[in-house]
Amino acid sequence: MIIDCHGHYTTAPAPHQAYRDAQLAAFKAGHSLPRPQPISDDEIRESVEKNQLKLIRERGADMTIFSPRASAMAHHVGDEAVSREWTEACNNLIKRVVDLYPETFIGVCQLPQSPGVPIENSIAELERCVNELGFVGCNLNPDPSGGHWTSLPLTDKSWYPFFEKMVELDVPAMVHVSATCNPNFHSTGAHYINADTTAFMQFLEGDLFGDFPDLRFIIPHGGGAVPYHWGRYRGLADMLKQPPLREHVMKNVFFDTCVYHQPGIDLLFRVIDIDNILFGSEMVGAVRGIDPETGQYFDDTKRYIENLGLSGENRQKVFEGNARRVYPRLDAALKAQGK
Amino acid sequence: MIIDCHGHYTTAPAPHQAYRDAQLAAFKAGHSLPRPQPISDDEIRESVEKNQLKLIRERGADMTIFSPRASAMAHHVGDEAVSREWTEACNNLIKRVVDLYPETFIGVCQLPQSPGVPIENSIAELERCVNELGFVGCNLNPDPSGGHWTSLPLTDKSWYPFFEKMVELDVPAMVHVSATCNPNFHSTGAHYINADTTAFMQFLEGDLFGDFPDLRFIIPHGGGAVPYHWGRYRGLADMLKQPPLREHVMKNVFFDTCVYHQPGIDLLFRVIDIDNILFGSEMVGAVRGIDPETGQYFDDTKRYIENLGLSGENRQKVFEGNARRVYPRLDAALKAQGK
Repeated sequence: MIIDCHGHYTTAPAPHQAYRDAQLAAFKAGHSLPRPQPISDDEIRESVEKNQLKLIRERGADMTIFSPRASAMAHHVGDEAVSREWTEACNNLIKRVVDLYPETFIGVCQLPQSPGVPIENSIAELERCVNELGFVGCNLNPDPSGGHWTSLPLTDKSWYPFFEKMVELDVPAMVHVSATCNPNFHSTGAHYINADTTAFMQFLEGDLFGDFPDLRFIIPHGGGAVPYHWGRYRGLADMLKQPPLREHVMKNVFFDTCVYHQPGIDLLFRVIDIDNILFGSEMVGAVRGIDPETGQYFDDTKRYIENLGLSGENRQKVFEGNARRVYPRLDAALKAQGK
Repeated sequence: MIIDCHGHYTTAPAPHQAYRDAQLAAFKAGHSLPRPQPISDDEIRESVEKNQLKLIRERGADMTIFSPRASAMAHHVGDEAVSREWTEACNNLIKRVVDLYPETFIGVCQLPQSPGVPIENSIAELERCVNELGFVGCNLNPDPSGGHWTSLPLTDKSWYPFFEKMVELDVPAMVHVSATCNPNFHSTGAHYINADTTAFMQFLEGDLFGDFPDLRFIIPHGGGAVPYHWGRYRGLADMLKQPPLREHVMKNVFFDTCVYHQPGIDLLFRVIDIDNILFGSEMVGAVRGIDPETGQYFDDTKRYIENLGLSGENRQKVFEGNARRVYPRLDAALKAQGK
């Protein structure tokens, strides 16, 4: 089967955004925060059928690991209560999509992060999503400030309580920033890719996986700049007297395939071990158009992978096996479906 | 001939750093700033012969476009006067290296940037370095705050007076950040690469080269993450209703070859037009070790390029022609040497 590890609900029904707008207006006015607006199952079906499901069927995937729209997490907006209520609404909506299409979607949650707020305060929502909603992972924002990078590196001990919970629940995190409020950084064109690169380098510099041998991260967007600069990172590990990357970082860190052209995918598979690559498309996402050079959607990353001529074994790893290993709760859910 | 467009004087004699230490101590204590400490020609010769020149000779380059150590620019340290005096000392030292080895080095200057200080205040030093010292370009820091990104994007009109001067003098800038004081970002492993990616995306979003058709930038480190994500950037240009990258950005933006492994160099040359690639090594620089996989220095990027089997014409462009075109004052200096 084919599992897309990186899908966002970017086409949620209009009342969801209307709720967010009302919430932020209320916050700004100093009023009490409103409740989410009602959304019918039909509205959800329509929003998914016309977009995500249509593309999934056209491209031939089976299961998408599905999370709220990343750019809309916007942890820097409002305050902790705003972030928490918005996060709960976003995660609840994902749960409804999963319940309507349990064979096609499985949930990954947004976290109620907020600048300066301890990450411990996100543990309850992670537990709710995993234990009550059946989610299999989370999206962890290394920069809740939205482009000002005011928090501490992921290797700092302040993050450890959350990592302990991740290990206890046996769920991985995708390292995923949100929209930026810093005018230097275009969100999907700079901030996303920079955050991927930054997180990898933090892992390289630190010894997080010495402390948490079972902790797992997916670095999206093909690992940011890392595979392209793989020699630089191998060399920096050497200069910093760290073990080789394969031992030091790559037992715990995985890259998706959200790289939107054939040469980039070719490079990714040339330098990164096949066990560390998970199929992902980021759709319906950052780049929605059709590449005039190929006549195909930029984000139809399955097509690039098919062109690699992988062996059956390696193909299975990238499209299914690695995802089932990195997300054990996905594996369990699939087995419960007889898959 | 072979021109390395990206060399830093990272092995300057000890009195240079001692001066910097004394300067920062004086600033901290509120004392008047000291003058640079004397450095003999022999000290300069020794510092270059044992390092840069030794490696240049071993690897077979002819000319290096040479600038002060990038990580030591540290525009975020001290204040504007500290930055100006340190910058002048750094540039003067480069001039001395050039005077000792005029056939091997040509200067590119650091700028006296400082957070919150208008870029106009860097114009005088650019003019001094170009008109009096014979330098051929500058290193422009898009984030003088050192990792907090408190200034405005390079496309903001506040930068325009400096760009006007660059065009008037017909010198390009390498977009190059310095050390970071933000613990999230390792300088050479994250901040450098992120800044490259960020600058490219700023150019993509804006229309700077509509306003300055003759302005030229070198984005170092192989263009950050850009070539690896070339499909993403082509797609984003399309989504943002910008012209194709070739017309919109790549008439004015060039990437160096500071990518420290063969697959990265292969990708760079596969996706980026040969006219936009300038040979560079960043030595003696970010990654000084020997790659155990090849037995060669990581930063011996000439070796990777030689492996590409370029045509004579394309080889000449990457190693010489493009640099002479992007740095017209280098071309003039070489012609004056009969080259």
